[in-house]
Amino acid sequence: MADHGNDTPDRTAGSGTRSGASSQDGPAAPALSRRRLLGTAGAAGAAGLAVGASGGVLGTAMAAGEVPAALATLGSTAAAFHGRHQSGITTPLQARGHLLAFDLAPGAGRRQAAALMRRWSRTAAELMAGHAPADDTGVALDAGPSSLTVTFGFGRTFFERTSLTAQRPVALKALPDFTSDELDRERSNGDLWVQIGADDALVAFHALRALHKDAGDAARLRWQMNGFNRTPGATSRPMTARNLMGQIDGTRNPKPEESDFDRRIFVPQGGEPAWMAGGSYAVVRRIRMLLDDWEKEPVGRQEQVIGRRKSNGAPLSGGTETTPMDLEKTDADGLPVIPANAHARIASPETNGGAAMLRRPFSYHDGFRDDGSPDAGLLFVCWQTDPLKGFIPVQRKLDRGDALSRFIRHEASGLYAVPGGCEPGEYVGQRLLEA
Amino acid sequence: MADHGNDTPDRTAGSGTRSGASSQDGPAAPALSRRRLLGTAGAAGAAGLAVGASGGVLGTAMAAGEVPAALATLGSTAAAFHGRHQSGITTPLQARGHLLAFDLAPGAGRRQAAALMRRWSRTAAELMAGHAPADDTGVALDAGPSSLTVTFGFGRTFFERTSLTAQRPVALKALPDFTSDELDRERSNGDLWVQIGADDALVAFHALRALHKDAGDAARLRWQMNGFNRTPGATSRPMTARNLMGQIDGTRNPKPEESDFDRRIFVPQGGEPAWMAGGSYAVVRRIRMLLDDWEKEPVGRQEQVIGRRKSNGAPLSGGTETTPMDLEKTDADGLPVIPANAHARIASPETNGGAAMLRRPFSYHDGFRDDGSPDAGLLFVCWQTDPLKGFIPVQRKLDRGDALSRFIRHEASGLYAVPGGCEPGEYVGQRLLEA
Repeated sequence: MADHGNDTPDRTAGSGTRSGASSQDGPAAPALSRRRLLGTAGAAGAAGLAVGASGGVLGTAMAAGEVPAALATLGSTAAAFHGRHQSGITTPLQARGHLLAFDLAPGAGRRQAAALMRRWSRTAAELMAGHAPADDTGVALDAGPSSLTVTFGFGRTFFERTSLTAQRPVALKALPDFTSDELDRERSNGDLWVQIGADDALVAFHALRALHKDAGDAARLRWQMNGFNRTPGATSRPMTARNLMGQIDGTRNPKPEESDFDRRIFVPQGGEPAWMAGGSYAVVRRIRMLLDDWEKEPVGRQEQVIGRRKSNGAPLSGGTETTPMDLEKTDADGLPVIPANAHARIASPETNGGAAMLRRPFSYHDGFRDDGSPDAGLLFVCWQTDPLKGFIPVQRKLDRGDALSRFIRHEASGLYAVPGGCEPGEYVGQRLLEA
Repeated sequence: MADHGNDTPDRTAGSGTRSGASSQDGPAAPALSRRRLLGTAGAAGAAGLAVGASGGVLGTAMAAGEVPAALATLGSTAAAFHGRHQSGITTPLQARGHLLAFDLAPGAGRRQAAALMRRWSRTAAELMAGHAPADDTGVALDAGPSSLTVTFGFGRTFFERTSLTAQRPVALKALPDFTSDELDRERSNGDLWVQIGADDALVAFHALRALHKDAGDAARLRWQMNGFNRTPGATSRPMTARNLMGQIDGTRNPKPEESDFDRRIFVPQGGEPAWMAGGSYAVVRRIRMLLDDWEKEPVGRQEQVIGRRKSNGAPLSGGTETTPMDLEKTDADGLPVIPANAHARIASPETNGGAAMLRRPFSYHDGFRDDGSPDAGLLFVCWQTDPLKGFIPVQRKLDRGDALSRFIRHEASGLYAVPGGCEPGEYVGQRLLEA
């Protein structure tokens, strides 16, 4: 497995109590027997699980208000805040997410930004360990950290506001315009970006409120989006995401166990600029899905648009989800089995000079628009060492010829430099702000 | 335990596969040993759980994409659609919810309404059992039913549209105006009401799309709201809800094991009108919380407003969450320990002639309003045999003197007659629509 610090895998099963989340522990043995599963449930019970005398644990006759004991590990799972990389990049997809952007307040500059990043880092570290901050709202009381992650990034304008343009990464230049963009500038970009994820919606909301409060007079909220993914345990299938089109999403993601994973996703030591070592670049796109149109298409037609089977994500050229696409394969008429304009073909690393990014999205659903169509789609978030070798070339190709374009709208956009993680006593971005 | 048909408790742990959810089985033995827990996990594994050779099940070294096996019971848990009561009333709170109201389309009447209820009942039964309906979108593929419930109700106007005013329950007369109401009529009332709940957000969204599609030309969406509660397993505490004010909510709810539970919540056989036997009345209120104001109050002041401790929900008169409030208790100055205007005092059954309702809410958070304040609060849903002996008298009192009023706004309102459940081959509301 490649060395990528704390961040993969960065979930730690705690002892079943909130304060017991041992996020600093090293990895335990990967193989876990049924005996261990039993032992875990027992330990959780010993730590105070409310399994009453009537006693059902996973039974069919569970009274209202009781919790299956084995599930309590969901709450006590903690991600590590400190480490080489920030959390929320290779952390498994969480059930709930918030994306926020802030602008520094008029008059606020480098000093205020540094103080804010210090406050935010302290709060994030406390919350991710399952501790309540000062003046806590209480919304997360009783729950564990529930895999909470908080990830901070800097937008292009941050460097002007803090007079640090000499430190601005070359990779952070504005994304090019794409012909299919219909971007809402008010919900795009921003000086500061915050990604919150957790497997419990109240834990995520609690973090959002605490971080918003921390912003104080230094920054004001620019935009906010709410998203979701599968709840852990809702499926026994490996958790490649399924999106609101019903399609499996992220099959071709770089895998942490691949030898070039770090090189593709994280800025190396000695990279440029130096303060970004261990960091990554996040591209954020709010992509509305035209579900009323999409759902009218028969499944066979949807599969031609995507290039993969809906049921299991297998390429139309055959095999299973993980079988490589055979882009050369033709049918009896000599036509490509995976159509020339299929989304999976156009986005594939093979047709993009090896360009790759780690897609880590949330779905969103904000009700209905005035025209009666659902305001729903994908909060697309992808991670890469350099957007010029990740999102940008792939999106240029998709923009020209993707059969999926007819069913989606890119409505908002952002590009952020996400610094590496920090050590205890440091704060995220310190190497930039105190250079 | 009182007899209340299928609806309490109505979650059934399936066999670990989607089709294996045995919602029609009778209740199993309530006591479940650790051995049974182990056996359940084993059965899930045999049914195809993806526990790879690298093998972590609940371990700390879980690779991205792997699922803890024990958690898969979350997905395979099913509620029963058929039975004496509809689901979603005494079903334990789910992590995700949608509330929707529809109006019958111009020209649609009783016949179209009956056909719609037949379609909806069939779809709900299939989805709740974990089966995909025809022309499925695929969004719930791989997941189990995840405790999905679908609940249907009729608003006051439904009876005019279907020329069934003679069958309209007396209890369904419009709610009175309350002085503190700031109601948005466009997000209130409606001919038909649908409540969807599930522990997985994609499963809930999938049901929403399927039911919306079923509406076809017969009804159009009037309003829709999205909500959430704790994810099962996020806390080891019994699952009384905690709301976005951080307060424990629902402590005084009637309990299924109480002898008068059925009498308080469900219309009895022989009640009026006859078609409502086994049914209940739902009051729905969208209650925005003024969190910026609330969070400025010190915890001690918040506790005076509520009359209970924030940490554990215990009344200020002492004890634990379940200790009865001592409304007479005074402090050294002779002042009531639970203030005269405390929310818990004014809402208590003791001060309302025994009025009681089953509160079963979702929290909501729809981002931020133009003034920068959070658009967040409670989708309050409460259940009772008669609103005149439940919500209405309590809300009248709260409207006059509740210390909490300063921190909340009632923004939308609805009252719905929710028929009893149906048997296989029937549809919900059939006893009304085919009388």
